[in-house]
Amino acid sequence: MPKGDSAPRTPPELGDMSADEFRRHGHELVEWIARYLDGTERYPVLARVAPGDIAKNLPAQAPERGEPFESILEDVDRVLMPGVTHWNHPGFMAYFGISASAPGVFADFLASALNQQAMLWRTSPVSTELEGVALRWLADLIGLPPSFEGVIYDTASVSTLHALATAREVAVPGVRAHGLSGRADVPRLRVYCSDQTHSSIDKGVMLLGLGHDALRKIPTDERFRMRPDVLREAIAEDRAAGWRPIAVVATIGTTSTTSVDPVAAIADVCESETLWLHVDGAYGGVCGMLPEMREHFVGLERADSFVVNPHKWLFTPFDLSAFYCRRMDTLRQAFSLTPEYLRTPDGARNLSDTGVQLGRRFRSLKLWMILRYFGAEGVRARLREHIRLAKTFADWVDAHPDLERLAPVPFSVVCFRANPRGRSMSAADLDAFNDALMHRINASGDVFLSHTKLRGTFAIRVAIGNLRTGEAQLRRVQELVSLGVGTNNP
Amino acid sequence: MPKGDSAPRTPPELGDMSADEFRRHGHELVEWIARYLDGTERYPVLARVAPGDIAKNLPAQAPERGEPFESILEDVDRVLMPGVTHWNHPGFMAYFGISASAPGVFADFLASALNQQAMLWRTSPVSTELEGVALRWLADLIGLPPSFEGVIYDTASVSTLHALATAREVAVPGVRAHGLSGRADVPRLRVYCSDQTHSSIDKGVMLLGLGHDALRKIPTDERFRMRPDVLREAIAEDRAAGWRPIAVVATIGTTSTTSVDPVAAIADVCESETLWLHVDGAYGGVCGMLPEMREHFVGLERADSFVVNPHKWLFTPFDLSAFYCRRMDTLRQAFSLTPEYLRTPDGARNLSDTGVQLGRRFRSLKLWMILRYFGAEGVRARLREHIRLAKTFADWVDAHPDLERLAPVPFSVVCFRANPRGRSMSAADLDAFNDALMHRINASGDVFLSHTKLRGTFAIRVAIGNLRTGEAQLRRVQELVSLGVGTNNP
Repeated sequence: MPKGDSAPRTPPELGDMSADEFRRHGHELVEWIARYLDGTERYPVLARVAPGDIAKNLPAQAPERGEPFESILEDVDRVLMPGVTHWNHPGFMAYFGISASAPGVFADFLASALNQQAMLWRTSPVSTELEGVALRWLADLIGLPPSFEGVIYDTASVSTLHALATAREVAVPGVRAHGLSGRADVPRLRVYCSDQTHSSIDKGVMLLGLGHDALRKIPTDERFRMRPDVLREAIAEDRAAGWRPIAVVATIGTTSTTSVDPVAAIADVCESETLWLHVDGAYGGVCGMLPEMREHFVGLERADSFVVNPHKWLFTPFDLSAFYCRRMDTLRQAFSLTPEYLRTPDGARNLSDTGVQLGRRFRSLKLWMILRYFGAEGVRARLREHIRLAKTFADWVDAHPDLERLAPVPFSVVCFRANPRGRSMSAADLDAFNDALMHRINASGDVFLSHTKLRGTFAIRVAIGNLRTGEAQLRRVQELVSLGVGTNNP
Repeated sequence: MPKGDSAPRTPPELGDMSADEFRRHGHELVEWIARYLDGTERYPVLARVAPGDIAKNLPAQAPERGEPFESILEDVDRVLMPGVTHWNHPGFMAYFGISASAPGVFADFLASALNQQAMLWRTSPVSTELEGVALRWLADLIGLPPSFEGVIYDTASVSTLHALATAREVAVPGVRAHGLSGRADVPRLRVYCSDQTHSSIDKGVMLLGLGHDALRKIPTDERFRMRPDVLREAIAEDRAAGWRPIAVVATIGTTSTTSVDPVAAIADVCESETLWLHVDGAYGGVCGMLPEMREHFVGLERADSFVVNPHKWLFTPFDLSAFYCRRMDTLRQAFSLTPEYLRTPDGARNLSDTGVQLGRRFRSLKLWMILRYFGAEGVRARLREHIRLAKTFADWVDAHPDLERLAPVPFSVVCFRANPRGRSMSAADLDAFNDALMHRINASGDVFLSHTKLRGTFAIRVAIGNLRTGEAQLRRVQELVSLGVGTNNP
């Protein structure tokens, strides 16, 4: 961190930092962050430390005396930065590429200073109402009809948990009051998803007391999409065996390959079977904004609930998950409780009724600032650029004689592997070769890729989603891949 | 927001805001926040808007074209600020007084720019390891023995949910795999808390599938403390009736009166009955740092889990809840899942195994910066000052012939009511008189108080916890109360 021009000051005996000191350190921090965001390439994307390296450089106990803020900022550079994996680096293409954009970072700064806690309307009218407005903006852009009401949670795990809790509320009369156990009238419950669905669904059924084996994973087709015919058969089979099916989770943009489940066909099944349909668009959902992508969203309007994470592909600093529900009153019915100390005379709707968390950070501010700063047009242009980059990379893979693409590319993620000509490797050797190739690429420090397994085959993923990622980073991946496939020991 | 000296610029066609523009707006924002934090008294504490007032001043749709950041900041002042209830105002004494201190606000700013996502150790070594270090610092200060391992969640609701989920994991063999329903071997489950316990416990048992009536509320004594003798009887009665008791939640600092349950006596019960003991110190827990408060913490070392919220009384911007558990391996057993796309070769412990949320914001940074900036000594001095202010106010209430104190004051919250001499009001009239008094006080804009009901009696609460709250604000409350009790129509 840059040095200020005044001598370090110890904290005051009582109260907070003085306004003068706040200004001094605030301005230093702005300069530091501006340099950081403009030059993350100075750092290796993936932190080059071993487990324990950061902790061992920190004292075992808190200091007894307060320290000048300068000393703390110096330690950020010296002790903490080596342990940062740079999600905001243009070479970050692992998991899902994401961005903390400037308007989002500013919004978080302001939100922290305002310290809004939107449990009740009156404890933060602005957070409560801006949440409604910004979520409606996003819903309109994505094409969700007004019948969907929105609420912001922290993560998709929590959004999906609320979706499944509401499905349980609908399917099990009296569950809010009487629970699930010790009741002869409640059999084992079943939730369906595909074999490509995110692990948050697994955690959700476990937490809700349905049990992990309540989750039945439906096989996918050759494009990694849930097979509605098998889903229908599974439901019939389960009903015959005494299970009570309650919900299906379909995904628009799965985690491994970004495959898209056939939402309309799944909605048909859910309607005829009277099951809750939750659609997980945590990553892919924002592409509802692109007319050329509408095919992936057909049937979404028939879902009961939907989640999209602006902290994934809408340039929003972590965390902000947008949850939409066509039956939000049922969700509130499952959770609302008003103890006396929270009763208010205004008759307004309180966000703490919409879920398990009482306290809520002022997250809508960043969504609102981002949508205004970039504009709908600007967001679309950025999504299209990421999709274009991914297609370019996929084309390069397809044209390369030593590479195989392992999945379609509906959005901005490419799954591929090396399979060098003229070398007949066993399946296990090929996996090991690709694993080594990926680690060698990551060791460059210039880019960071992650992997998955597709039908048991090791696949390297290139996931584009950072605002600063461009052709330079893709060319670097291509160089590193080409270098690796040319060697026996990548 | 202050105007910059350059002409407004529209966002670039692709990518993020330029570094120059980031600097310009960042510096403006620092000035704005410095002025805000130093002068929140310019605003009424409680927002003076009616439901819908903020939303109606915002466009119904997101802008198609991106806008200069200047325009967005202008709307913060013009449209949003009137809807802010100022939690960071020295006159905020409702619910629990809290503070977003400067080092915490800076930490959030930096954390958003770094955009760490600590699902795996490798995706953020710094966040993963600093979380362990900062939580150990806090545990040592509070006096929690090393057998307690910590993890950071967003809110106490989520911390308590994980405590109860772990209790369920212990008490119901196979619940992770097989759930609760359709099992002849699992009877109705029971959780115990006092009639003063926070509503998050109610939501927890509902979400976990135990049902709301699984929560049995034990009566409290004249000081609003859970009665261990009644607890023991209730457990015996429930066992005889076929319930399976699984956990007790004791509170150090309840929400209404900050009463302290007799943790040691409750721990005796839990040990002899083999029940999980969760201690909710969301507000009061930080006072474990004060030797003169140790009496309230006797027995805490025998708890299975404990929650304390630095975002309540440790000057931390919302949200940061510190959860400690003596059996964290059991918690991980209840939740860990590693899909292929999250497997890593480093063998490190991953935070996403410790709970339901996969993604995690870099929250430990603010706890670390706050403990360093204020130091243990500085934190203790501030807690003691808040406690001193509360005692001063309680003494004033006790000495005032028209006021009644309605609960002991172990920490920094005073519950009282007006009961004017020479007027014999019915219980209902007294409640209405105090309700009106509180609203009149709040209408001043100088302070914000909230209420509770104690054994059916309306009580006004004065809750001190903001770093900037001092004698001036207390005197203002005294003036407003005195003015109110002197009138027939407060």
